[in-house]
Amino acid sequence: MTNNHISNKERIDKHIDTLAWYNSTPTKGITRFSYTEQDRKAREYLLDKMAELGLQITQDSVGNIRARLEGSYSDAPPVLTGSHIDTVRHGGKYDGVVGVVCALEALTVFKEQSYIPQRPIDLIIFVEEEGVNFGAGLAGSKALVGTYTPETLKTLVNDDGVSMYDGAKSFGLDPDTMGDHLLKPGDAHAMVEVHIEQSVVLDTEKISLGIVTGIAGIEWLRVEIEGQPDHAGAMPMQYRKDPMAGAAEIIATIEETARSGALPTTVATVGKILCSPNVPNVIPEKVHLVVDIRDVDPAGIETVTRMLIQKLEQVASRRNLSYTVKNVSSIGPTTCSEKVVDALEQSAKKRGIAYKYMISGALHDTAVLAGITEVGMLFVPSIHGRSHCPQEYTSIDDIAKGCDVLLGALEKLSKL
Amino acid sequence: MTNNHISNKERIDKHIDTLAWYNSTPTKGITRFSYTEQDRKAREYLLDKMAELGLQITQDSVGNIRARLEGSYSDAPPVLTGSHIDTVRHGGKYDGVVGVVCALEALTVFKEQSYIPQRPIDLIIFVEEEGVNFGAGLAGSKALVGTYTPETLKTLVNDDGVSMYDGAKSFGLDPDTMGDHLLKPGDAHAMVEVHIEQSVVLDTEKISLGIVTGIAGIEWLRVEIEGQPDHAGAMPMQYRKDPMAGAAEIIATIEETARSGALPTTVATVGKILCSPNVPNVIPEKVHLVVDIRDVDPAGIETVTRMLIQKLEQVASRRNLSYTVKNVSSIGPTTCSEKVVDALEQSAKKRGIAYKYMISGALHDTAVLAGITEVGMLFVPSIHGRSHCPQEYTSIDDIAKGCDVLLGALEKLSKL
Repeated sequence: MTNNHISNKERIDKHIDTLAWYNSTPTKGITRFSYTEQDRKAREYLLDKMAELGLQITQDSVGNIRARLEGSYSDAPPVLTGSHIDTVRHGGKYDGVVGVVCALEALTVFKEQSYIPQRPIDLIIFVEEEGVNFGAGLAGSKALVGTYTPETLKTLVNDDGVSMYDGAKSFGLDPDTMGDHLLKPGDAHAMVEVHIEQSVVLDTEKISLGIVTGIAGIEWLRVEIEGQPDHAGAMPMQYRKDPMAGAAEIIATIEETARSGALPTTVATVGKILCSPNVPNVIPEKVHLVVDIRDVDPAGIETVTRMLIQKLEQVASRRNLSYTVKNVSSIGPTTCSEKVVDALEQSAKKRGIAYKYMISGALHDTAVLAGITEVGMLFVPSIHGRSHCPQEYTSIDDIAKGCDVLLGALEKLSKL
Repeated sequence: MTNNHISNKERIDKHIDTLAWYNSTPTKGITRFSYTEQDRKAREYLLDKMAELGLQITQDSVGNIRARLEGSYSDAPPVLTGSHIDTVRHGGKYDGVVGVVCALEALTVFKEQSYIPQRPIDLIIFVEEEGVNFGAGLAGSKALVGTYTPETLKTLVNDDGVSMYDGAKSFGLDPDTMGDHLLKPGDAHAMVEVHIEQSVVLDTEKISLGIVTGIAGIEWLRVEIEGQPDHAGAMPMQYRKDPMAGAAEIIATIEETARSGALPTTVATVGKILCSPNVPNVIPEKVHLVVDIRDVDPAGIETVTRMLIQKLEQVASRRNLSYTVKNVSSIGPTTCSEKVVDALEQSAKKRGIAYKYMISGALHDTAVLAGITEVGMLFVPSIHGRSHCPQEYTSIDDIAKGCDVLLGALEKLSKL
């Protein structure tokens, strides 16, 4: 039994480069949607590698793949590790793929060194994490834990009018039997996922690894502000009921509160705005914002929400506007397991690799699995924070460091 | 020769009500686009009335109508009065129609009383004032003064792909001969248009008439603010380059400057906003605003423009954003002729009708005619300022007062 398991950089690099070939937009980043020809080829490549290692491979009814390195206690709940291989449109080579390739490399190293863990270790590949094909993120992991039923999958429809349910069927799967493959509480000992950070923190601070202590909860609020659509030339300033001017105050308050009025971990964004009638010479009748608020501490989300509503009330009364706020989506924060955080930290320390604790502002399949097992994540740097774009980049050195720390953590977590 | 010409309220009311029947959306306000069946019926109704009065009727190559009450000096340049009968989609009964009906009623009263002016008086009906069919407002008057050529009309295309040029042809007109019908400087003695105010000033102040002293100039600026599209969850507040937060500051500055930093006559509006990629979980890459700035005094427009650019510079540098500002349309202000303003004012005073001086924030065909003759306008109240909607309303009493004042003004202006 040793802690000297070391990943093979060249092998990691080759896997990442090869997977990047399975791409429907070769001149514009990487596009690999679930259940497409590119997805099939990427799966075949990975399944071949897993088969070469002699792993026991299963594919569930929606296409999540699990490949098991048998443990000496084969009945013990396994340690899970992996990520996803679907991408956004015109995305990059690293998002998702890094976690899958690190997991594959870890099991390869164990096999090479004839290391037999006590618990089984399962490489897991989730389908449709990005949600860009069928419109709902984390769909594969949600189906795996039973949050999404076959009926749900019928309601998730892509731009061609094909549901995820029918997409899975065309891909040779049988989503109706998903109930037979559910992962339930007690079925796994832990889940650990390596992922690119998708932000600038590690790159800015020149630290190779981030040990994730929590995954932010998300609140999506739809704010509609209504005024009166008047002639932009004929209506004097003092008589206007202008929801756009009101919205500008609201956007400013949201940013200011997240920046300095809530917690250091709070972020809030207005990424979507719609204006009606949206013509230059009419004072808008309605402005509609979607506000994305995240924090690992619910108090941060509550502060932004409270300040937002306070400001809306004030702006509406001063400007003679009306408003509604509707909660369109709410996902609680995930606290990473001390057990997994410790395993990652000890592994990093033993290897002398610098790390920092951080939180994940982005959601990952691991947050879904937190409902049934203890979880943790390990971040590697995104150069300039770029992600979901062709410029997405993480150095092979950093990925290998992540894989090395994963190796130690898996070793630790797989002990009975 | 008398100043006791008085309009007939019932007749005015009947004309307005009858024209409202020629409507393609009977359950949702009034919709009467140029060159449609509804337009043709409205024209036939009016042409019948003009013919009954024995007016000399001409229709030019794009469909502008002129109907002349002959003067005793038939070679003298005529006084023009009128407006338009096309409407926006789901508009009201009064916008445009009031000016046409008041002009028709004025000529009817003169005929009834066998009053013969010295100069001819032409009732004028402009085609396609609203620009909602072919996408460019004031198109009929612009064709009449030669700003739009037949070639221009070929470029103005409606939602069915039909150009204004082809629309005119299908309507039985011959736009190629427009050059023969141009109205040139010296061809008219004056133009006076009665119109609904389209704002709340007269209604709020309970004054029946507004004598327009100037028509605001308009500047349309397209502002594009560019930042960096990052993950709304993963990117901490302090590292963001968020053009939406920048745009909020810009919108606030535009409103504040127009409200209290420029002139009392200045208005500025952000009625159009586009955000890219416009999804809730991505910090926007670009926000695009169209700013509409108006004033009768160019200094007001300049002040808003200057403050806007100053703020953009400041916001871009503080937030690490880039920006462009492009002037997409610029129309200078129109000063109404003292001659026309005096004629309207004396007429109102003689009749004991309360009025106030005001400016027009909206553009009208009269502003186009300012290029070739002396112009003026008379506003009647819009109840609650509503316009371009089914709720548009002006009382028949106020319209009749407007017509009475128009009668006196036409009498005055038509003297040699």
